[in-house]
Amino acid sequence: MRNIKLIVAYDGTNYHGFQKQYNTGLLTIQEVLENVLFRLAESEIKVTGAARTDAGVHARGQVVNFDASRWSIPADRVALALNGVLPRDIVIMNSEQVDVDFHARYRALSKTYSYILYNDNKPSPFWRLYSCFVPRSLDIPAMKSAALMMEGENDFAAFQASGSAVKSTVRTLFKTDVRKKGKFVYITFRGNGFLYNMVRIMVGTLLEIGLGKRLPEEIEKILTSRNREMAGFTAPACGLHLKLIEY
Amino acid sequence: MRNIKLIVAYDGTNYHGFQKQYNTGLLTIQEVLENVLFRLAESEIKVTGAARTDAGVHARGQVVNFDASRWSIPADRVALALNGVLPRDIVIMNSEQVDVDFHARYRALSKTYSYILYNDNKPSPFWRLYSCFVPRSLDIPAMKSAALMMEGENDFAAFQASGSAVKSTVRTLFKTDVRKKGKFVYITFRGNGFLYNMVRIMVGTLLEIGLGKRLPEEIEKILTSRNREMAGFTAPACGLHLKLIEY
Repeated sequence: MRNIKLIVAYDGTNYHGFQKQYNTGLLTIQEVLENVLFRLAESEIKVTGAARTDAGVHARGQVVNFDASRWSIPADRVALALNGVLPRDIVIMNSEQVDVDFHARYRALSKTYSYILYNDNKPSPFWRLYSCFVPRSLDIPAMKSAALMMEGENDFAAFQASGSAVKSTVRTLFKTDVRKKGKFVYITFRGNGFLYNMVRIMVGTLLEIGLGKRLPEEIEKILTSRNREMAGFTAPACGLHLKLIEY
Repeated sequence: MRNIKLIVAYDGTNYHGFQKQYNTGLLTIQEVLENVLFRLAESEIKVTGAARTDAGVHARGQVVNFDASRWSIPADRVALALNGVLPRDIVIMNSEQVDVDFHARYRALSKTYSYILYNDNKPSPFWRLYSCFVPRSLDIPAMKSAALMMEGENDFAAFQASGSAVKSTVRTLFKTDVRKKGKFVYITFRGNGFLYNMVRIMVGTLLEIGLGKRLPEEIEKILTSRNREMAGFTAPACGLHLKLIEY
């Protein structure tokens, strides 16, 4: 096996998420990557992605690995070769050969997501696909302290899309941050893993706190309830950006 | 006449420029505005735009005026009413009543355009529609001094798309600026008017200077030649942003 690791950035607007969907006719990032690899390597290559981003979610640091033993191209040239044929909304930021036991998903130690709020009295036509527009004023300190209460090893069952089936809903949130910068509010989460829709439900809950509809103290109650209905709404996909995956 | 002035921001990606095109079936900003006004005012309203931006060109401060004498809505509520029905890539930033003799195009004293270069070794999927990607290093001081040589009252015939027919090709460029900020280079022009494709040809010429293919001193020779073939290429539309119109 010749194991190649890619760092991939993409504008998720025109895709139905990262993961290949069989027999749906819906285009995904994984499919586009595999199609392009097949074209260049003239051999079927399956890629493994670190995170299954949803439809409309963006990535600046998605990580992918694949076996290139039947494709005789230097590893560091893979990025250039792929970028030459990929659509312009998917860009390979880096390519390198890694140990055979590297696995994009199983070896990930942390993932960092950033959610962008566009907080102004008028929306921006340029940020409509990359942020969530919030025209009302937000209590940033309240959002910050609520985010802090989410940190640590917790059972995040309440922050998981209902109907999901995973063995354990316990995850560790290493660090959160809520930061206003001009018209933007950046909400960042770094954790060892995230449940389905977890970041978007955490953001929806923080937004309700920022708008004064809930108190920061409710976070603890929501966590212990393990009940999806106790948490806030699911913030729209387009504001979510997968920033970094660490190994 | 009840004269209403709008400031309009738009993502030009999905439009064939600002100005209405008859019998082409190509959608323009003006058409969308007039359709929406017709729907809200239940009366045909023709809008006048300050600048005829090309297909793919963006605006943050396009100015439009129209007669709302048959639409009984307070002027300051027009923005909100229009934004409620406009597609999300067109946003009215402000609406106000102005003097009857205000005319968005004829009364404009200056227009400011900004051109964005994305100057990094890899393109960004998020900036592909709003900038021009330049992977090679640029000589910013050379571009800056060449831009300075364009300033003043000049015959810009060489910087006009060939085949254009205007009475005079003399325009005054009040101010230029070339500024690098992180991965971005912003090239700004403030002038009393611009010929067809003038900004994009000036940017193309500055780019060739920045890449070392031409010397800044050539600007004077290009201007005096009045010959389109002496100037550089026409930079792509998507990097161009109409920023501000002053009255």
